[in-house]
Amino acid sequence: MKKLINDVESVEEQMILGLVKSAPHKLRKLDEGNIVVRVQKKEGKVALISGGGSGHEPAHAGFVGEGMLDCAVAGPVFTSPTPDKILAGIENVHAGKGVLCIVKNYSGDVMNFEMAVDMAGDEDIEADYVVVNDDVAVKDSLYTTGRRGVAGTVLVHKIAGAKAEQGADLAEVKAVAEKVIANVRTMGMALSPCTVPAAGKPGFVLADDEVEIGIGIHGEPGITREKISTADETAKKLLDTILTDLDFKGQEVVLIVNGMGATPLMELYIINNFVQDYLKEQGIKVYDTMVGNFMTSIEMAGFSLTLLRLDDELKALYDAKADTPAWKR
Amino acid sequence: MKKLINDVESVEEQMILGLVKSAPHKLRKLDEGNIVVRVQKKEGKVALISGGGSGHEPAHAGFVGEGMLDCAVAGPVFTSPTPDKILAGIENVHAGKGVLCIVKNYSGDVMNFEMAVDMAGDEDIEADYVVVNDDVAVKDSLYTTGRRGVAGTVLVHKIAGAKAEQGADLAEVKAVAEKVIANVRTMGMALSPCTVPAAGKPGFVLADDEVEIGIGIHGEPGITREKISTADETAKKLLDTILTDLDFKGQEVVLIVNGMGATPLMELYIINNFVQDYLKEQGIKVYDTMVGNFMTSIEMAGFSLTLLRLDDELKALYDAKADTPAWKR
Repeated sequence: MKKLINDVESVEEQMILGLVKSAPHKLRKLDEGNIVVRVQKKEGKVALISGGGSGHEPAHAGFVGEGMLDCAVAGPVFTSPTPDKILAGIENVHAGKGVLCIVKNYSGDVMNFEMAVDMAGDEDIEADYVVVNDDVAVKDSLYTTGRRGVAGTVLVHKIAGAKAEQGADLAEVKAVAEKVIANVRTMGMALSPCTVPAAGKPGFVLADDEVEIGIGIHGEPGITREKISTADETAKKLLDTILTDLDFKGQEVVLIVNGMGATPLMELYIINNFVQDYLKEQGIKVYDTMVGNFMTSIEMAGFSLTLLRLDDELKALYDAKADTPAWKR
Repeated sequence: MKKLINDVESVEEQMILGLVKSAPHKLRKLDEGNIVVRVQKKEGKVALISGGGSGHEPAHAGFVGEGMLDCAVAGPVFTSPTPDKILAGIENVHAGKGVLCIVKNYSGDVMNFEMAVDMAGDEDIEADYVVVNDDVAVKDSLYTTGRRGVAGTVLVHKIAGAKAEQGADLAEVKAVAEKVIANVRTMGMALSPCTVPAAGKPGFVLADDEVEIGIGIHGEPGITREKISTADETAKKLLDTILTDLDFKGQEVVLIVNGMGATPLMELYIINNFVQDYLKEQGIKVYDTMVGNFMTSIEMAGFSLTLLRLDDELKALYDAKADTPAWKR
């Protein structure tokens, strides 16, 4: 294992401290754990919390800030944070108008966030949650019942974040988060695996000419393992699966070309070149495109494509101001 | 070679097209080559041009936009663009107030940009250039006489870009670019090599427990090849070399923790955690920190640290608005 770390035990905490120190006037870490909140707590708004296992940076702590999340709770690498940590986050950012948790659909995350929401209820904090399940690759997986929650989650952060910032109430923020979830689809692939620091070796092995199509963000098996083909053919394969799953024809969309952590921007742009042309051919209008690392799998090489169908409400919220380490608009 | 490309010949063009298609209302590609300019040409300002070999994405085309560059000219991977392409860029963005080229100190780049500046002069376009040489690792290198120009270049884009946007004349923009160059220092290291598509195999080989300290952004040899140590020790080694080279004590600085292309954000944040504490101990105040991929070497794993000494002028220009794919402020 060749990594720029100090020791396996301190990876998560040092990473969170390093993020917070990159924006010390905007972010701070709570003493209770690897929990990141805004320095300026905003009263009278619905508080948004996300989180999950570490290893998906910049998700989720990189999306804490004006217009997006109020708090991110980071578990160990690829492991859900425990309910007490999530509750500590809820208690801290709760500002009298309720709390919404945005949870990726992995069994551990759903269980622990649900428990934290219940515990918050016991303290008379109005809390609720939504589950993101945008991955069209597989129905059930190693760690999931139903579809996995992957890169589309950052669009839930963005749009529900904008709604909350505008002063909407908890039911309204939850409704718009669910609207995003209903309209967002993602699929990914990998060229090479990643190594969880505590495991010390890659989670799977691919031959020199082999890729995994439909992989999850923890390296969970996808749909097929096959010979590597061109960037265009690979992107087409992912897109066709997404476009079969939901009708995007004639729609306006946001597109995310997301790197898995070790993918050079060069390759992501080459993929985007094809995707834009292909979507145009299909009668789909791209309203905005994001290319970069948003939901990663440590140092996995590969990419995912995310499409979100827009309506006027989603478009306006997407365009609202955001000021976070990983998303400025 | 395992890459998400279509064929070796089309890498640069498809990449540039993919970038432009990610921001079609803001960027466009010239027919003359892999030359990116703003859609909205701004008249009456000094035009700023940069460029060099491809493979350093988002540099340089990702920094074209309001507050930064007017044009970026991309050569083949790790190879300077030819003078005629640079001249095509100069001719296009020239807006009656002169053109400044920002060139990284590599022999091929300096030669070709100098030639293009001369050719522009023959057409009565007032053009000039500055050479960035921020890398403290080595004096002369495989492709350079004197110090190499690396990640500090993006701070020249930012600050000279802000000055030009404010309406300064060519001499003033050049003077502030040179002020940045005089005050910026960088050093990098690699955990793993990168593969130039046309070469098909890595430019060098490192053992499983070996790193290269002081490496250049084309994988040129650095100072030492040594056993991998901790993130903190590695960062300290780079910082100590930078701090010995220029007196940063008592100064305010901008810090860039730059990934080389395949480095997970997790590791960059762990490095930042140490760097912030260490700079504080040394009596150096960090005004702002950027963590991410700014000047890469395709899919090399590793990082560089850049420090820029600020004064009031540089600070105000650094804080000015920028709206480019890779830098929004």
